[in-house]
Amino acid sequence: MRFESSRAFAQSLDRQDALSSFRSFFAIPEPDLVYFDGNSLGRRTFASTDRLQCLLEEWGRDLIRGYTQDWWHAPERVGEKIARLVGAAPGQIVASDTVSVNLFKLTAAALALDPGRTNIVTDTLNFPSDLYILQGLVSMLGDHHTVVRIGSKDGDITPDLDALGAAIDKDTALITLSHVTFKSGFLYDMAFITKLAHSKGALVLWDLSHSAGVVPVALDSCKVDFAIGCTYKYLNGGPGSPAFLYVCKNLQEQVVSPIWGWCGQKEPFVFGLDYVPAQGITRFLTGSQPIASLLAMEAALDPLLEAGVEALRSKSLGLSEYLIYLTGEFLAPLGFSLGSPRISAQRGSHVSLRHPEGYRINRALIEEMNVIPDFREPDNLRLGLTPLYTTFGEIWEGIDRIRRTVIEKRYMKYPTQRLTVT
Amino acid sequence: MRFESSRAFAQSLDRQDALSSFRSFFAIPEPDLVYFDGNSLGRRTFASTDRLQCLLEEWGRDLIRGYTQDWWHAPERVGEKIARLVGAAPGQIVASDTVSVNLFKLTAAALALDPGRTNIVTDTLNFPSDLYILQGLVSMLGDHHTVVRIGSKDGDITPDLDALGAAIDKDTALITLSHVTFKSGFLYDMAFITKLAHSKGALVLWDLSHSAGVVPVALDSCKVDFAIGCTYKYLNGGPGSPAFLYVCKNLQEQVVSPIWGWCGQKEPFVFGLDYVPAQGITRFLTGSQPIASLLAMEAALDPLLEAGVEALRSKSLGLSEYLIYLTGEFLAPLGFSLGSPRISAQRGSHVSLRHPEGYRINRALIEEMNVIPDFREPDNLRLGLTPLYTTFGEIWEGIDRIRRTVIEKRYMKYPTQRLTVT
Repeated sequence: MRFESSRAFAQSLDRQDALSSFRSFFAIPEPDLVYFDGNSLGRRTFASTDRLQCLLEEWGRDLIRGYTQDWWHAPERVGEKIARLVGAAPGQIVASDTVSVNLFKLTAAALALDPGRTNIVTDTLNFPSDLYILQGLVSMLGDHHTVVRIGSKDGDITPDLDALGAAIDKDTALITLSHVTFKSGFLYDMAFITKLAHSKGALVLWDLSHSAGVVPVALDSCKVDFAIGCTYKYLNGGPGSPAFLYVCKNLQEQVVSPIWGWCGQKEPFVFGLDYVPAQGITRFLTGSQPIASLLAMEAALDPLLEAGVEALRSKSLGLSEYLIYLTGEFLAPLGFSLGSPRISAQRGSHVSLRHPEGYRINRALIEEMNVIPDFREPDNLRLGLTPLYTTFGEIWEGIDRIRRTVIEKRYMKYPTQRLTVT
Repeated sequence: MRFESSRAFAQSLDRQDALSSFRSFFAIPEPDLVYFDGNSLGRRTFASTDRLQCLLEEWGRDLIRGYTQDWWHAPERVGEKIARLVGAAPGQIVASDTVSVNLFKLTAAALALDPGRTNIVTDTLNFPSDLYILQGLVSMLGDHHTVVRIGSKDGDITPDLDALGAAIDKDTALITLSHVTFKSGFLYDMAFITKLAHSKGALVLWDLSHSAGVVPVALDSCKVDFAIGCTYKYLNGGPGSPAFLYVCKNLQEQVVSPIWGWCGQKEPFVFGLDYVPAQGITRFLTGSQPIASLLAMEAALDPLLEAGVEALRSKSLGLSEYLIYLTGEFLAPLGFSLGSPRISAQRGSHVSLRHPEGYRINRALIEEMNVIPDFREPDNLRLGLTPLYTTFGEIWEGIDRIRRTVIEKRYMKYPTQRLTVT
């Protein structure tokens, strides 16, 4: 598509946007705010508000009876909704716990399947949080396994696929990657990597935290073994809403979670003294899930399902292509370079812009320009684009404010020390 | 105290109740309902409602900035509030995950401290859900450990303390028990058991799910090593609100969670590729906690703190003594027997009444008498008493309805098959 650099052109793109009506599903109390961090925390839908109001009534009125009426099966019910966003047939996904706990459960289950295979292959583009879980699990299991981490530099935009391929061998138990990498937004070819791993007898686990809801995912047709993902980013579930996990049907009876939770027990209300795993995906549940956070998230999924994955991807690519175009026009002359793949087929729904002063520019944008990007070391201004509510006009405005921040040297008053939440 | 069996006497007890004003802190939309299941799900406080309403505003307005303003430190902040209810100095408790996941983390940490000790001692009065976690962990670690489970019969009211003492020996790594047992409501002598375990070099982990908020707990002065607990029972946190965990100060630097979560990382926002545990109790955090459920629970703690543990215990014992008295007057002639300790010092805040038709009586009470007890196999009608909102009048009414259910044979129309949620 040919873009133009005027604000009016942005407005014309918004008028042509097939998903423009979905913005009204979200609470947007401050229209002047440019929000480029929906991939850290999605905006709140009115549906989530309504569901939480309703839950307050249920809790007060129904008390424990709420479980038999609606709550007990929420992890499975929500899982089925998410399944429709990630190409999974029913009975393979539940919402539960956190991404970290789910990665722990599934990796442990995978390793137990073939104790002769002792390597876990991953890369430096993966979430550090995922790497920590792998490290901890290997330590817990007595260091009989090795985490093979491909990639050298923290600032890589794309993975070294040759090195990745070479690392997968007869000792590889599992390869686990982030489908869309958290920093550069690189989108892996799920079908290719999964097939490659299977050809060497290894299992595959994908972290969908940055792809669910914005990128077409085809877990079943790619024959993926395991997947995990977060729901508070593009799924708009709300702060810390429960994560999800996927175990493909044909592995479910062979694997068991190392955390033998009572919600995954075959007959949880008989209170038998010995654990017997439930049939199917519910065996990966642990304890009682946080119902307020879970139901708020469930409600937020409906607009995504209504829009459909293809339309979400189409809009997402339109947004990121346009952002990259404007970056070339306005920001490249100011020292910005693209920290994400230029090829759209290799890109998720966020774009990283690199600048030597990235950290201070990020600070200035938040403090005085009413723009919320995110910053990732060493120099990435990470801009998340959410198809259901990010507008082309917002991108134009955001890029213009970044431009002014640099031209007016607004960033220079901020310290160069790094942000830590204390 | 001398009780009388008239309804008027119940009302006089309510008039003398020092905590009677706290009932107004709770949503009680249906005053006719007799709610004896606050130990499964506590009633909703108006404070929780207000906090959730406020959170909806914050999520919509502040978006990701909500974390730096209030949310990020909520697990620690909530932990400090709970600490005041369970006799713990600051810096030893965080709210996180589920009871099951926390038991997994702390038991794994405990076992790693001394690999030469291979037994975990527990009993059949413990939550089955806790037993499952122990079984799963032992299996995951290659069956090098043994779960030694004291007690024979499912229907025991009190534990076999001699057998328990005898089971703890030089091979015991950890003894873990439910402080108040979930079925009979037996209250362990925490100081005695902990001292006994320590005298044999074993560590101790208490599950406080049925004691926090109703029974005085003195973790620090009993020199307890580890504790876990649930917040949706007597702490009124709401359905599935996050659990908590305690690790005593002097063990914190020696132990590490097997789940190396990024929220327990030393510098979580630097995104380093290798895990370095945080100093102190936060190293036991995993991933992003469900903020809606967490903050609703935080708000519910304030009335408990305002009432104070001593007053809560005093009221709780008054309630259970009165219930046992009325049971003797009205229900014993109908075939009920006490399934809980008669000695108040050995009793938590629920009373189990045993009857051969317990299952069907429970059904009839729920279906047609507007009473919500709970049923536990084989014959326990479990009646939870919550000091802040259960009234003496409610107990009188509840016992009277149980009496009428039996006298009028209302239970006979219900099937004898067991309740399972499907």
